[in-house]
Amino acid sequence: MSKRDFYIGIDIGGTNTMLGLVSNEGEILKNHSFSTFANQPINIFLSNLEKIILPIINEMNQVRGIGVGMPGVNSKTGLINNSVNFSWGNIDLCSELKNKFQLPVSIINDAKAAALGEMAFGKARDLKNFIMITLGTGLGSCFVFNRQVINGFNGMASELGHTKIARENRRCECGKLGCLETFASAGGVCRSVFEIICSDKKKTPLMNYSFNELTAEIVTKYAVKGDETALKAYEKTGTVLGAKLADFINVFNPEAVLFSGGLVAAGKYLFEPLEKALDENLLITHKSKTQIRISDPNVNYAVLGAAALLMNQQEM
Amino acid sequence: MSKRDFYIGIDIGGTNTMLGLVSNEGEILKNHSFSTFANQPINIFLSNLEKIILPIINEMNQVRGIGVGMPGVNSKTGLINNSVNFSWGNIDLCSELKNKFQLPVSIINDAKAAALGEMAFGKARDLKNFIMITLGTGLGSCFVFNRQVINGFNGMASELGHTKIARENRRCECGKLGCLETFASAGGVCRSVFEIICSDKKKTPLMNYSFNELTAEIVTKYAVKGDETALKAYEKTGTVLGAKLADFINVFNPEAVLFSGGLVAAGKYLFEPLEKALDENLLITHKSKTQIRISDPNVNYAVLGAAALLMNQQEM
Repeated sequence: MSKRDFYIGIDIGGTNTMLGLVSNEGEILKNHSFSTFANQPINIFLSNLEKIILPIINEMNQVRGIGVGMPGVNSKTGLINNSVNFSWGNIDLCSELKNKFQLPVSIINDAKAAALGEMAFGKARDLKNFIMITLGTGLGSCFVFNRQVINGFNGMASELGHTKIARENRRCECGKLGCLETFASAGGVCRSVFEIICSDKKKTPLMNYSFNELTAEIVTKYAVKGDETALKAYEKTGTVLGAKLADFINVFNPEAVLFSGGLVAAGKYLFEPLEKALDENLLITHKSKTQIRISDPNVNYAVLGAAALLMNQQEM
Repeated sequence: MSKRDFYIGIDIGGTNTMLGLVSNEGEILKNHSFSTFANQPINIFLSNLEKIILPIINEMNQVRGIGVGMPGVNSKTGLINNSVNFSWGNIDLCSELKNKFQLPVSIINDAKAAALGEMAFGKARDLKNFIMITLGTGLGSCFVFNRQVINGFNGMASELGHTKIARENRRCECGKLGCLETFASAGGVCRSVFEIICSDKKKTPLMNYSFNELTAEIVTKYAVKGDETALKAYEKTGTVLGAKLADFINVFNPEAVLFSGGLVAAGKYLFEPLEKALDENLLITHKSKTQIRISDPNVNYAVLGAAALLMNQQEM
């Protein structure tokens, strides 16, 4: 049996951060989750992170490094430049963590971490060309061509969340109007609920929630019960996302699109309108050729992929 | 001095077909151009092609093969399945030409041929990651990642011309509504002219042309003279194309977008509104990072790229 090494994988989301102790065989031994507090100064995040990581490092002397996935990371420089949904400004998180924990640290875009994790251990093990979509606080994406991640000339490829929905005027956290992410994300679903309440004014228990209280989980709960407003909010989400994805399937002709993130729990309420929109918008030669795959919701592949970053580095 | 071999490169467009005798050093020795008659049965095209090719083959006994670029070719199978703008149905043009001329034949998408030609001999010699856009009868595209053409899972990648412009209702030759190609192509510019005449009814000499008479060259001629309708038609073209390209720059983060085809003769009338639309739609981290390059209008790089297909095969 080969020697077991361990890595810490961290998936920093706009709402929660997930952390795992990962073996070089892709097993997650310890799981932690805490609020990111993305709108607070980064020191609060770093201090919460330290409280979890230090005991792990002290307990296990085979921890070989820390891999991080986070939105808005430049894949070439490892720097974070004003990541949308975070008020952390321009930071070199990689150097911060190296200094703090005295371990090798690698950092990449969270959707790229998810794609690497899915390729190594999940639903993309058999895929050569696919699009990874993470639906959480924001919309993350990663395009994989011949099992290589497309990083782009400046390391800033894959900003699918900030492509535009024409003539839609929702303000995005990035400062622009009408970004896909303002529709196809947890917050986007909630915005759609309030828009539909305003336009249709159909009686729904969702009228009892404030904008700050409402979450996508709550909307899903009412969709399951058949609430028309909740169903219509998911229909809007799926339709907008499907129409935009059709553009990218027309151009990249991938074998599959693989979805992960909290929002996929909405299941058919999201994916039925999404597949209908794909069908309506794809060029005839592309219809029904691309598989829709859903990640295993019980495993955080971004944590695995972030940890795998360092395993690969040591193997090479 | 190395031995000189010759190849025939053919660029089949929706309106005209260009043909060149190309040396293995990338020199075009003979140029021919003829009407494709894309809406007539393919036999008319094949018979016109034969009249040009046979004398060349008989005269030069070093012709080593024929390379073809054509819209709608499947890059994996080499088959043509109902190419948009052509009424040739499902054909195996590669086998047809092999049998007719008893020479090796390779066939790829026309925009891919242009991208290969530009990489070998033109404005993409220094580029690793770029998007090639051909603006002619249709809109062709080719995405290049690490100098590899993205062909897609089924060989049908790069159908940028058939991505959708939301809420725009122009019928496309592919059968769908609102395709980018119905705006950003020679025919798209002419459609915009008639729409603008209808909406603005501003006096313009363009009112003297029938739909069948009007060409993009004529529109350009009046744009140069300052005709407001002509200028507005190019503004519409550039704006729609720039907004859609922004989506793909956000995701692909290329070093450059390289344009070729008849429509680029419109110059600033097309590219100024295009660059403005890019600026308005790109995520802030992508603004002004991607170069806009224009192909040399005096060289047909699709002819060179099609010919180069066979040079590379023999080298490998």
